[in-house]
This record gives sequence, C-alpha cells and structure tokens, in this order.
Amino acid sequence: MQKLVLLRHGESLWNKENRFTGWTDVDLSADGVLQAVRAGQVLKKNRFTFDIAFTSVLKRSIKTLHTVLDQMDLLWLPVQKSWRLNERFYGALQGLNKAEVIRQYGEEQVHLWRRDPHAHPPAIDEQDERFPGHYLRYNDLTYRELPLTENLTETMTRVLPFWHEAIIPALRQNQKVIICAHGNSLRALVQYIENLSDEAVTELDIPTAIPWVYELDDRLNAMKHYYLE
Amino acid sequence: MQKLVLLRHGESLWNKENRFTGWTDVDLSADGVLQAVRAGQVLKKNRFTFDIAFTSVLKRSIKTLHTVLDQMDLLWLPVQKSWRLNERFYGALQGLNKAEVIRQYGEEQVHLWRRDPHAHPPAIDEQDERFPGHYLRYNDLTYRELPLTENLTETMTRVLPFWHEAIIPALRQNQKVIICAHGNSLRALVQYIENLSDEAVTELDIPTAIPWVYELDDRLNAMKHYYLE
Repeated sequence: MQKLVLLRHGESLWNKENRFTGWTDVDLSADGVLQAVRAGQVLKKNRFTFDIAFTSVLKRSIKTLHTVLDQMDLLWLPVQKSWRLNERFYGALQGLNKAEVIRQYGEEQVHLWRRDPHAHPPAIDEQDERFPGHYLRYNDLTYRELPLTENLTETMTRVLPFWHEAIIPALRQNQKVIICAHGNSLRALVQYIENLSDEAVTELDIPTAIPWVYELDDRLNAMKHYYLE
Repeated sequence: MQKLVLLRHGESLWNKENRFTGWTDVDLSADGVLQAVRAGQVLKKNRFTFDIAFTSVLKRSIKTLHTVLDQMDLLWLPVQKSWRLNERFYGALQGLNKAEVIRQYGEEQVHLWRRDPHAHPPAIDEQDERFPGHYLRYNDLTYRELPLTENLTETMTRVLPFWHEAIIPALRQNQKVIICAHGNSLRALVQYIENLSDEAVTELDIPTAIPWVYELDDRLNAMKHYYLE
C-alpha cells in the first residue's frame, strides 16, 4: 500500500479579496502562510515523509510547498515545477471580484462558468497583459498550449499528461509523493484517480492547505482517502 | 558574453555562534534572512535574471536561494539540489566552537585544518550521529562518497563533477545560472574557474550573501569578476 498526498495551497491574497485568480501569480496571505505551517506540522506529527514533490509555477503553491517541507525538515527534496499543475486559466475573469461578476452576468451564468465542464469564461486576446505568452516562465509552451480561456475539461486535459509522465513514474518507483497545487488542477487529478463523473466532481470542494491522503494499491487504484487535520 | 552568479548563503545560526558547521543542517539567522532579501533586491535592481538555479541539500543555502528568487519574482525557476555543492565536511570539528578548538589544538593547527589543502580535520566514525550515512538525503551516495572528514582538495574533487555534469551543460545552452552554496564549495569553484594556485585561494574569503558575478567568454573563460553590492 502506497500513500499519495494532495495539498491545495494556503489562502492567497485574492482568495481573501474574493477575486478570480487563475494564472495570476498572487502571493499567499499571512493566514495562508500559517495554514501551510500547520499542514507541515500535521504531516510531520502523523509521521509522513516524501521522496519527491511536485508543484505548479505559481508562487502561492511553491511557497506553500516550501513552508510544508521546511516544517518537515525535507527542504532538500527534489521539487519539480510544471505549468500543467497551474490553476485553471480563467480568461477575462482573472482579477475580477466574484460578487461583481455575479451582479453583472447573473448567478446562473457564473455557476456555469465555475462548474460546467464545457463552459468557457470570456476569453482574453493576445494583447491582454494576462496572456501567458508574455511571461518568461511559459516560454517552453507551444502556441496551442497557451490558453486564452479554459473550461474544466481543458484543464483536466493539460493536467493529465503531467500525471502520466512525471507522477506515475515516481509512484511506480515506490517514491513517496506530495503534489502541492490548486483547486481546479487537484480536482482534475481527483476526478481521474477516482474515476468520478462530471456531476460528482461538481460537489467537490478542496479546502486550502489540508492534506488529502490517498492509499493506493499496487495498480495505483485508490482504496481509500481521507483528510489529515 | 555570459554572466554567472555565485552566492554564499546568508549568515547561519552557527556562523553567529562561531561554530564549525560543515554538513550540519543549521538554519539561517534572522540577519541571514535579511541578507538574502538584500541579495535578491540588488540582483533585481541590476536587472539580473536567471534560467536555472543550483544549490546544496542544506537548508541555509536552499532558503537563501528561495528568498533571492522570491525577491526577483523567479520562484518558478527549476532548482537543482546536490550534495556535491554542500559545505566542506568538517569531521569531528562539526558543532565545536572555533575559539575552543583553537584553545585546545593551538592556532597553527586550526589554521592548517582550515586552509591547508591536504590537512584533514579529525575524522568521525560511522557510529557518530554526524555520519551522513544516517541521513535519508544521502541515500544515493556510494560508501566511498560518504565522508568521515574532508580536506579542501577532497571538497574540490567532489564539487567539480557537478560543475562539469550539471552547470557547464546549462551554461553551454546559454542559460543564465545562479549557484547558491557555501564558503568552501564556492571557493573550490572559484579556484577551478580562475585556475588559482592553492596559495592564492587561501587568501580568498567569500562574504555571505553578496552576489559574486563572473563574465565568461564563449569558452567559459572568466574575463572579469566583481561583487554586486
């Protein structure tokens, strides 16, 4: 039996301000840092350890992971960062206040954008300063990989190659893995790992900085999962 | 012309207490963290940027690098950690107060241990809790690679394979490189890069957290170096 830990980053400044964040590289709030410290302490108290860590290229996840590893005295671990673990790209909604977007577009439309697997938030264009093509960290992406908006199915589609090419091989070598990422990239992993329907995953809200533990059998089938609090 | 930045970690708790540290995984002092912040700010102000970062498996270097990259908004960079960039292994001196060691062994002996390229500090044995074979992070080392003590020549000898196998290939691909490491592992690199004699390198003291910049020609020959303050 093998364990796998998923961890959503601690509260960010824009979680606090109730704004759509997506790929905007927003920092952790002071509470978010404390949440990360607690996540590291609870993992340590429960005698978890890791051999390798995966995270996104966004600082709220990278800092959460750094803080967790520091608490566990595991800062020396290899850490692999990938844009494929980034939060869903929220298009023209990025930066907007969620309550204002609801006032403008109506509750139903916003609910669809957030939870319908095929609904696209309004797209940006390539001149928009939020276009990832303007950022060095996305230099290795092909033109087709640079999003203007993303529905949940597209998020899943770009997360899964990283699962198959980086995370599965580590698990296959019996490495103990932690993945520190975002609400929607983790939701995509959970949907795949548990083979959930689109409807079932709609109900799933992953809280910030609470370790989510899978127990996997030797086919990496999820036998059990629980929160570590 | 290509630039390469070497950075010694900020002040550690044992630098402050004047103790031999070596591979003991001592944290940064509060001043050490501030030094790292300033190093990041000065690099940013001088419009430096990087494509890849290298550091040791010791937290005083890893945290210094994390703080520098955070200041430069480069936390998303790939970071490669290697025991080969660790501080010199100081054997049985690790943990001892430098003034007390001088009182016990005499100034001349201690000077030899610190600066003679062939002098070995007293060795530990494998039962000693300081033996790296007891630590998970050194699991991949062969028996011969696990030190009981190290003279400066041996430090150089285990640092250089990492220079040739990891750092040179990055520079050859025109990647902008920062190496965040330790007094003696950086001294080994400086000696090699500048082809210094053992006598010349004896004079060299690398201050904590002041970026040391090389300008390299297309054969990676050091044309010029300077501190960024």
